[in-house]
Parts: sequence; C-alpha cells; structure tokens
Amino acid sequence: MKKFNFAIVGATGLVGREMLRVLSEFDFNIDNLRLFATENSAGTKLKFADKTFTVETVTKGCFADIDIALFSAGSKASKKIAPIAAKEGAIVIDNSNAFRMDNLVPLVIPEINPKDLHNIPKKIIANPNCSTIQMLMALFPIYKNFGIKKIIVSTYQAVSGTGKKAVEELINQTKDILENKEPTVDVYPHQIAFNALPHIDVFEDNGFTVEEMKMLRETRKILHNTDISVNATAVRIPVFYGHSESIWFEIEKFANISDIIESLKSFKPILIKDNPAQNIYPLAIDSVKTDMVSVGRIRADLDNPKAFNMWVVGNNIRKGAALNAVQIADYLIRNNLV
Amino acid sequence: MKKFNFAIVGATGLVGREMLRVLSEFDFNIDNLRLFATENSAGTKLKFADKTFTVETVTKGCFADIDIALFSAGSKASKKIAPIAAKEGAIVIDNSNAFRMDNLVPLVIPEINPKDLHNIPKKIIANPNCSTIQMLMALFPIYKNFGIKKIIVSTYQAVSGTGKKAVEELINQTKDILENKEPTVDVYPHQIAFNALPHIDVFEDNGFTVEEMKMLRETRKILHNTDISVNATAVRIPVFYGHSESIWFEIEKFANISDIIESLKSFKPILIKDNPAQNIYPLAIDSVKTDMVSVGRIRADLDNPKAFNMWVVGNNIRKGAALNAVQIADYLIRNNLV
Repeated sequence: MKKFNFAIVGATGLVGREMLRVLSEFDFNIDNLRLFATENSAGTKLKFADKTFTVETVTKGCFADIDIALFSAGSKASKKIAPIAAKEGAIVIDNSNAFRMDNLVPLVIPEINPKDLHNIPKKIIANPNCSTIQMLMALFPIYKNFGIKKIIVSTYQAVSGTGKKAVEELINQTKDILENKEPTVDVYPHQIAFNALPHIDVFEDNGFTVEEMKMLRETRKILHNTDISVNATAVRIPVFYGHSESIWFEIEKFANISDIIESLKSFKPILIKDNPAQNIYPLAIDSVKTDMVSVGRIRADLDNPKAFNMWVVGNNIRKGAALNAVQIADYLIRNNLV
Repeated sequence: MKKFNFAIVGATGLVGREMLRVLSEFDFNIDNLRLFATENSAGTKLKFADKTFTVETVTKGCFADIDIALFSAGSKASKKIAPIAAKEGAIVIDNSNAFRMDNLVPLVIPEINPKDLHNIPKKIIANPNCSTIQMLMALFPIYKNFGIKKIIVSTYQAVSGTGKKAVEELINQTKDILENKEPTVDVYPHQIAFNALPHIDVFEDNGFTVEEMKMLRETRKILHNTDISVNATAVRIPVFYGHSESIWFEIEKFANISDIIESLKSFKPILIKDNPAQNIYPLAIDSVKTDMVSVGRIRADLDNPKAFNMWVVGNNIRKGAALNAVQIADYLIRNNLV
C-alpha cells in the first residue's frame, strides 16, 4: 500500500492546526509529515497521531520528498512558496486567494467539481473561499436540477475567518466594552465587538470588496458557468466560529418549494435544519458540531415564482477551509492522481 | 400660544424613556405630562425638563385631559388601552404592531407620507417598525425619482429592539461565555451572544417571520403602492444599538449610479457615509451619534442595469421608534391637527 508524505505550510495558524486535526481524522497512509511556519513560530511542538512534530521554517529542497503540501499561510507566502514546492515535486493544495483565478489552477469543492482535479498543470490546486464553499454546497443540488440564474447573498461572517489575532481582538474588545474601557482597534479598520462591519478584504473600483467578488468569480469557475450572476454583500459580525448567509436565488426552470426541498434532501453532504415552528434553523454557534453545511429558513419568494430564500450556516474553518483542502487530498489519493 | 398635555404609556421601557428624552429636545409648549407603566414600574421617578415625574398606572379617565399619548408598551397593552385613550380624548401615537395594518389607522414616516396624518378616524396613528423606517428613509428619494419594483433586504438587528431585558441578556451571556460558563437563554429562543439568529417575531405559514412581513406590508401601506415587492430576511445579531441593513433594490426607470447618489444627496434627513477607500461606511456603533439614517456601500449590480446595493444603518430606538413618534406629534401640532 502506497504511503504518502504530507506537509502543512502555515501549520501554527487557525486553519493550519485544523488541517492537522482533519488529517488525523482521515485514514491516509502517512509516511512522513512536515510542518512549516514563519520563523516566529518555528520550534512550536504540535501533536499528530501520538507523535510530536516540531514546526520548521521552509528551506531549499524541503518539499523534495513531499507528495501533498497543504498551504494556509496567506496569499503572499503562497505566491512565493507554492511554485517552489510544486517544482520540488509536491502537489500543492492552497487555501489562499493567490491562485484561485489562475486558469491553470483548478478551484475545487470535491462534492461539486472533482473532475477538475484530473488536470493540474501547475501542480497547484486552489481551495475556494469559505463563503463560496458553503453557499455552493447549499445551492449545488438546486443548480443541478433547475439551473440558477441569479444569487443575492448577504453574509454574517465569523472573526475566525481572519485568524487567531481577530479571535483575540473580539475577546479583548468585548471585555473592554463590558468594563467601560475604550476598546483597542487593530485587526479590523473598526471595532468588531457589538458591531457589524460591511467590509471584508479590500475594495475594488466597482464598489464591491474582493471578498464579495470572490463569491461571484469563484462560483463561475467552480460551476464552469460564466453567466450565473452573484451579488454579494460580505459582512463581519461578532461571532467566533461559523459563517451564516442569507441567500436569495432565482432558478432557470420552474420548481415549487417541495421540489427545492427534495433537491436539497437528495444531496447527502448538507444538513437540513428547517422547522421554524420548533425554533429549528441553522445557527453559527452550532456550526462547530458538524462538518455538514446546514440549510434552513427555506421559503418561496412571495412575488417571483422562480425565486427562493434560505439561511445557510457552515463551519468556516473546517468545510470552509481545512476540511475541503484535505478532501481534495483524499480525492487525489483515491484516484491515483498523486 | 396653545399648550399641550402629553402622556407616555410604557414610560419606563427603553423606547418610553427615549420618548421622554426626545420630547425634551423638541420645543413643544407642554402644559402637563403624565407617565404611565405597569404596576411593577409605577412609582418610578423620571426627570423631564428639570422636574421629577412619578410613573403611574393607567386608570379610568386618566387620558381625559391628554392631547397626545405616545404608546410604547407592546401590542397587547396598545390593543387594550389605546382605544380607551382615544375615546377619552387623546390622539394616540402607537409604537407597537397593534394597529399598523388597520385601514383606519395611518402608518406614518413624517418625511415620507405626512399627508396621511390629515385623516385619523380612530384618533390612533401607528409608528412603523424600526426596520421599515430606516429602509424606507434610505430608499424614498430613489423611489420618488425612479420608482422601485423589488427590494431584497437582509437585516442585522440590535438587541435593544427587543427591549431592556434583551440588552441585559446580551451582556450576561457575553460575560458567561468569556468566563467559560454556560450562558442562560431566556429572552430569545437561542443564545444571542456571539451568534446570529434568523428569527425575529413569530413565523407565518409562508415561512417568513412577522418581522419580515412587516417590512413588506408596511412598505406597501406607507408608499400607497400594493405592487412593490419586499423580500426580507430579519436577523438578530449581538449588537446593542443600531440596526444595519444590506439592501438590494431594482428600480423601474433607468438610472445610473450617479443618479442614485444624487437622489440620496437631495434628501436632507439621510446621511451619506460612502468612502470605502477611507474605510468610511455606516456602522451600528456610530448610530447613536446621529438621528439621521446613514447610507453607504452604494454600488450598481454587476448584471442588472436597474439594480443597486446599499448598506443602511439607523438608530432603532430613536428614528426607528421614539423620534419618529415625536416627529408625528410635531407634525400634528404644527398643522393644527390636535
């Protein structure tokens, strides 16, 4: 049985640590594992499968024996290091935005477009943005059956999407405000505690943020559909884990609400939590309890017979990042693509 | 100069206290003021214009000398007491949902449909829902110039909209979570701290909540337009004061983004905060600093030439409730309607 050497670049970050956890949950036949981070974090000890690993810095040739390198170290590091890792022989699965729109880099949600993994010219694969992954997981079965023309989405995103420092900032600002102290604003341009920031990533000239444009561009690339319209408003709210999304969508063919619900039910990897009479709907605080994307508040638009609403919650660190990346690795291994 | 007797019913609540504050900011010629609440709160002393007033319970005949009674004591109390107050001689301005859809009760945002105040058959006037008020304040100048066909809105609502107990619950749950204690859930069906609840008011059979349907029904009534479509998703988030709204809207005539911005600029009571390059956009935490509804993130839909997005923030306790009610009183007085 073939054994594989794995590496994680950015191993000490929120997503990096979760990648390590997810790796341990899969039954990969791992021969060697190397963990990389910046100099600041080098020397950190991390546990994996009862063994302790020491985090190293990236050095020349360090990817020579690596089969799969999972990257979650930010766009800048990915742009610099991922091509080197690929050249030295690893297949890179990159969680950053660096290569997502590169025509020679597949952008993959394994439950949706796994076939794109059969052509990896640069030996780099991109993991989509967390907000895109959970939105498409919820919409894909409907898209497959009825087509989707337009999506209008407003997000309610957790600070963990920004990383450890943002989680700490939310804790510190919250404490300060409860003690009537002036909160320190560092990670975000404004206070995030007890606030809602309509600003994630930088602004483009069209007035949308890069985060909002990702939801359009990545959707088109993943679905191989340049016509689908995605209008997003990405908002950060004071939640630690779990992104929520208010989604309105218009389908191409006709379907009634039962058809929509049946489609959703037929798609195994999503969880329907939709019994408003019993106060059951997806909640961000429940997102850490499951790897499934949760869908609820499913209802028909009152005026447009082809439009519907739903409320979608996903674990932004796992399915939105670490899990999706490891699922890509799993597909590569099971299909002898590595 | 004519003097007026005012009453506030529900004077000890969050909105009731704000009504008292707003009353003091207007230059009404107030002769007498009576403050009412339930037995639990009767006896409470409240300051108004350097005088101390004692909160009383409602008794038979207590509205006989009252010209204007501002109600903010919930739907149940309004349904019971408002008709009595009207019968005893007062004009009631009611902040609850009790009479909003009553055909014989005007539902008024003074900047939008003040003329409706010239016909008050039941001597009861309804104050619209906070979410509706700020949405329509932002959209009205555009509606007037170009017409609006459809609105798709997702809200980010503050707990103060629920009242004092909800503000306390958010504080207590937040403290408990930061101390790793299990939070107590009482006011809302689920934990509100570090969470997003897609559930405000009760659910109707169509899957929308009453709060969401209010935004449709009240919009149609205020604009006297039964064709306009409003698709709302109302969400409570852990914010103390200030509702935020992500609004997508489709206009009837053609207009470009400059036309939309010019329309907004021409409407005095709204504040445009829209300079993303400088991180300037409306924020919930800034909502307490102004009585104006703030509008930002104004941008054109990328595919629909008649559609636009914006981010709207309003002070839910003042313009969303107390201030709008007192503005109605002001209009009545200035137009000799009382």
